[in-house]
Amino acid sequence: MPAYTPPLRDMQFVLHEVLHAVDALKACPAHADADVDTLNAVLEEGGKFAAEVAFPLNLSGDQEGCTLDKTTHEVRAPSGFKAAYEQYVAGGWPALSCDPEYGGQGLPFVVNQCFYEMLNSANQAWAMYPGLSHGAYECLHAHGTPEQKKTYLAKLVSGEWTGTMCLTEPHCGTDLGMLRTKAEPLPDGTYQISGQKIFISAGEHDLTANILHLVLARLPGAPAGSKGISLFLVPKYHVQPDGSLGARNPIYCAGLEHKMGIHGNSTAQLVLDGAIGTLVGQPNKGLQAMFVMMNAARLGVGNQSLGLTEVAYQNALAYAKDRIQMRSLSGVKAKDKPADPIIVHPDVRKMLLTAKAYAEGGRALMSYCALLLDQEINHPDEKVRKDSAELLALLTPIAKAFVSDNGWQATVMCQQVYGGHGYIKEWGMEQYVRDARINMIYEGTNTVQSLDLLGRKVLGNNGASLKKFGKLVAALVEQEGTNEKMAEFINPLAYLGEQMTKFTTEIGFKGMQNPDEVGAAAVDYLRVAGHLVFAYFFARMASVALRQIATGSTDPFYTAKLQTARFYFAKLLPETAMLMRTARAGSAALMDTEAALA
Amino acid sequence: MPAYTPPLRDMQFVLHEVLHAVDALKACPAHADADVDTLNAVLEEGGKFAAEVAFPLNLSGDQEGCTLDKTTHEVRAPSGFKAAYEQYVAGGWPALSCDPEYGGQGLPFVVNQCFYEMLNSANQAWAMYPGLSHGAYECLHAHGTPEQKKTYLAKLVSGEWTGTMCLTEPHCGTDLGMLRTKAEPLPDGTYQISGQKIFISAGEHDLTANILHLVLARLPGAPAGSKGISLFLVPKYHVQPDGSLGARNPIYCAGLEHKMGIHGNSTAQLVLDGAIGTLVGQPNKGLQAMFVMMNAARLGVGNQSLGLTEVAYQNALAYAKDRIQMRSLSGVKAKDKPADPIIVHPDVRKMLLTAKAYAEGGRALMSYCALLLDQEINHPDEKVRKDSAELLALLTPIAKAFVSDNGWQATVMCQQVYGGHGYIKEWGMEQYVRDARINMIYEGTNTVQSLDLLGRKVLGNNGASLKKFGKLVAALVEQEGTNEKMAEFINPLAYLGEQMTKFTTEIGFKGMQNPDEVGAAAVDYLRVAGHLVFAYFFARMASVALRQIATGSTDPFYTAKLQTARFYFAKLLPETAMLMRTARAGSAALMDTEAALA
Repeated sequence: MPAYTPPLRDMQFVLHEVLHAVDALKACPAHADADVDTLNAVLEEGGKFAAEVAFPLNLSGDQEGCTLDKTTHEVRAPSGFKAAYEQYVAGGWPALSCDPEYGGQGLPFVVNQCFYEMLNSANQAWAMYPGLSHGAYECLHAHGTPEQKKTYLAKLVSGEWTGTMCLTEPHCGTDLGMLRTKAEPLPDGTYQISGQKIFISAGEHDLTANILHLVLARLPGAPAGSKGISLFLVPKYHVQPDGSLGARNPIYCAGLEHKMGIHGNSTAQLVLDGAIGTLVGQPNKGLQAMFVMMNAARLGVGNQSLGLTEVAYQNALAYAKDRIQMRSLSGVKAKDKPADPIIVHPDVRKMLLTAKAYAEGGRALMSYCALLLDQEINHPDEKVRKDSAELLALLTPIAKAFVSDNGWQATVMCQQVYGGHGYIKEWGMEQYVRDARINMIYEGTNTVQSLDLLGRKVLGNNGASLKKFGKLVAALVEQEGTNEKMAEFINPLAYLGEQMTKFTTEIGFKGMQNPDEVGAAAVDYLRVAGHLVFAYFFARMASVALRQIATGSTDPFYTAKLQTARFYFAKLLPETAMLMRTARAGSAALMDTEAALA
Repeated sequence: MPAYTPPLRDMQFVLHEVLHAVDALKACPAHADADVDTLNAVLEEGGKFAAEVAFPLNLSGDQEGCTLDKTTHEVRAPSGFKAAYEQYVAGGWPALSCDPEYGGQGLPFVVNQCFYEMLNSANQAWAMYPGLSHGAYECLHAHGTPEQKKTYLAKLVSGEWTGTMCLTEPHCGTDLGMLRTKAEPLPDGTYQISGQKIFISAGEHDLTANILHLVLARLPGAPAGSKGISLFLVPKYHVQPDGSLGARNPIYCAGLEHKMGIHGNSTAQLVLDGAIGTLVGQPNKGLQAMFVMMNAARLGVGNQSLGLTEVAYQNALAYAKDRIQMRSLSGVKAKDKPADPIIVHPDVRKMLLTAKAYAEGGRALMSYCALLLDQEINHPDEKVRKDSAELLALLTPIAKAFVSDNGWQATVMCQQVYGGHGYIKEWGMEQYVRDARINMIYEGTNTVQSLDLLGRKVLGNNGASLKKFGKLVAALVEQEGTNEKMAEFINPLAYLGEQMTKFTTEIGFKGMQNPDEVGAAAVDYLRVAGHLVFAYFFARMASVALRQIATGSTDPFYTAKLQTARFYFAKLLPETAMLMRTARAGSAALMDTEAALA
């Protein structure tokens, strides 16, 4: 059975010592009273909930899964999920970073980010129920009518009801322009919606009395493609004027998917058989409205893999210290034992350090993204809001795809540390791998993320957003360039920054001749960009650690951070050498293959 | 539901056009009558069995799994497995490459290799039942007493009984020196064996009336460590002098593991409660005797991943042609459809081509290894036998680890091609990923393989074996060096060959100062070696294809082969640039991390 300890020390390091989150938040009127102790206290309590309530249900939830009653169309989540959710609601957790106007606690998004990292470590499948709700909250908060907000928002904030996002249909996922679900306007201003949705996470369950579905559908005569999609709010139960639940709306769970992982979350096939809904946002602008939720969800997916990376690492580390097998190549280490603990073996250490570096780099990136979101929404200076939004838009596909790809590699390596036991369910490691696998697929596959990054976010504005990030890198290089102790981090960072500019320009030129060059380079490009971002954060973290050590700190945390940063630069960053080479190899080796792929 | 077509054309290409297997075989008296048509006919029939009998049970076997009756200790394999096995036996397949003296058909190992590739594509979990038996056959054939051979060998050849290998115990897998199972000699020359074994594949089942367990145990007073291990044959049922089954031997299945994959194979915990066995080979030389089986098993594991790579590729290719989603970046391709098939997208092609290249490179390597085994065992010239053995020993860890790592990447990519559907069990792709995962772990983890390669097979004889392979590379470079059309393949191969020599010398020197440098470099080293081997085979295959095209062949197979080779050199081989860099980064970044891994 795995164990989990919330990584509070590292969160505090990232928030307070690296990002100086409280300073940034205090500049926002909504968070003028932010302080270190409150943030830490919330995370400590949140960590307790994650470790003590959500975590013990992870393995059992995977084994039991969800069950659908085909007569009533009701779904039962695994044993204990409902009780845990009730505790979650009783603790006020759904309201953490919600708008006080609707009952929220108004805490910064960055706190919610760290809290959710811990929930994801504890139980990704369970965390998806409140996670999807929070996305629905954000979408309705941004695009709902006053009437919709009045009726529904407080219920999402309190957690009394949950929400979903209903996009995918059997014939379209990536290409939502093809969706067929229809919405017919009714005389009373509502819409009658019919169609079929699949892959709806938390799409039906017994955790709450009502579920609010956000459904993409087409109005009559809507333009073809993605410009003819509208967004509707479709509650499972209608809500009466006094707020009580009315009639059942005909949006039914027709089946649950049998999945590789996240068994504890109900992935529902939903049939809308003339279900009644109300329009959210403008007609035919549904995709834009939904994008609020999708961007949140993409960051959320990165965060899921961050959580899995952390918990897999913690367990693999403990196992590697405990399991004895063979002797160290450089001589016996545990003389009192018949063999050495496997952590003496260089490759075991490499697997562990890979997971650790990906967790710590991911935590810095995800926290930074959440802080950008706080600034985008709440900063009084329009330029700061705009810059934050732009940087966040650039980093979102990286946070989603780079962190989830890393999480995949990391959970697989942590499983490998266990040898044969890693393949056995009771040890819990194979579940992390199965759960992590979905994160590379949903909310836009990682290939889609790479096209979003390279095509839209980078080349789409001639590299302007990338230059903004480049300025951060340049400032750090400038600031630390004369610090000899930082040379081992700053030099490769500066070098990669320069290469990245050239690399981007090259692809841009080639892409103008042949757009397939962009598609051929995009996945490699995203990973190079991800490494640039991680190298930047590891250099910043190393600089903080070095300063602490220089001023006399003997806290081993700082030495550990330096060692992890060194490992990252020595053993993980060199992947960029391969990626730039394969990207530069161009599209012909992929496209001139009609015979090979016949 | 997935589909499977045996890749007979590519097998024939590798066997006859690249490796000229029949010529090599004819030089061996045992295969003097080898001919192309017979080999092809056997593989065609074998392919039918795989596709028509074993394949339809793959998904259902995964879903149903094995069941243990805790009262009788009997295990039931999934529905249909027993009937399929009976068909397998009726068809004479177990005897394919076995010794005619014991009822075998005496066909070359390379035929069995290709046949098993197809079985693995069709149903890895099922194929493990006969696969383990074949390993047991080889071990007994090499080390059994005349009495043991007389009693048991024909039963393994006919398939009437199956075999297992019982090595692992709860506290030791890699480090068998620690094993505790005890064997007490009895006055009649047999041994009474007590202990506990885990992870025993095909360890208990209802496919056959008897099971022959090959069990590692310690004799009284045996030296500590791996030098005190003996090998015993322990039948599930005793065999009476007339060959009929006698009393039940107390070797019981105490539990079945709940695994990530290969659910159709029974992974048994076995308790030996004074079970009676006979010694195989010399006392305290059990590991050496078992290594016959382990080497066969290691090649078998590479072959399992080759099979999974092929079947995953076939299905992903079909899906990518069928599934329409979005338009090509370079303009509409399927004007008659609302979207283009996803195979138009460069990254989808990259995923498909990666799987294809890894399948075809793997097939060439695995077939070559099997042919070396044929020569090692059956060639009349001692030098050829010795050289073949040495080359095979060098290539075995590569075949196991490189091919299984590649198979992991390939099955994951093929799953990714399916988007969300790849995560759903009914599509079958996630099973390939789960099944492929074990191949990186069992029969010696891939880290263990890398230490075997670098520490024992390369540095252990000062690079002599590696030089033997280097000579093959040099000969090809020499032969094709002036052929301009081959330059795109030969130049990078020659370059990598040179780098490999330097790289090996460097690590050798560093390793003399600090053995952890070997451990730190080994995994990267094995992948570089694997790429050198694949580059060699792709260059050979390209050369055959170019010659065919030059002499007027219009068979698109050759164009396809060239395109795949080009893809391999452009997009996969560059991984070596990263691997050499990370290996050269040395051990300090891994070992000077006491604080980080505290």
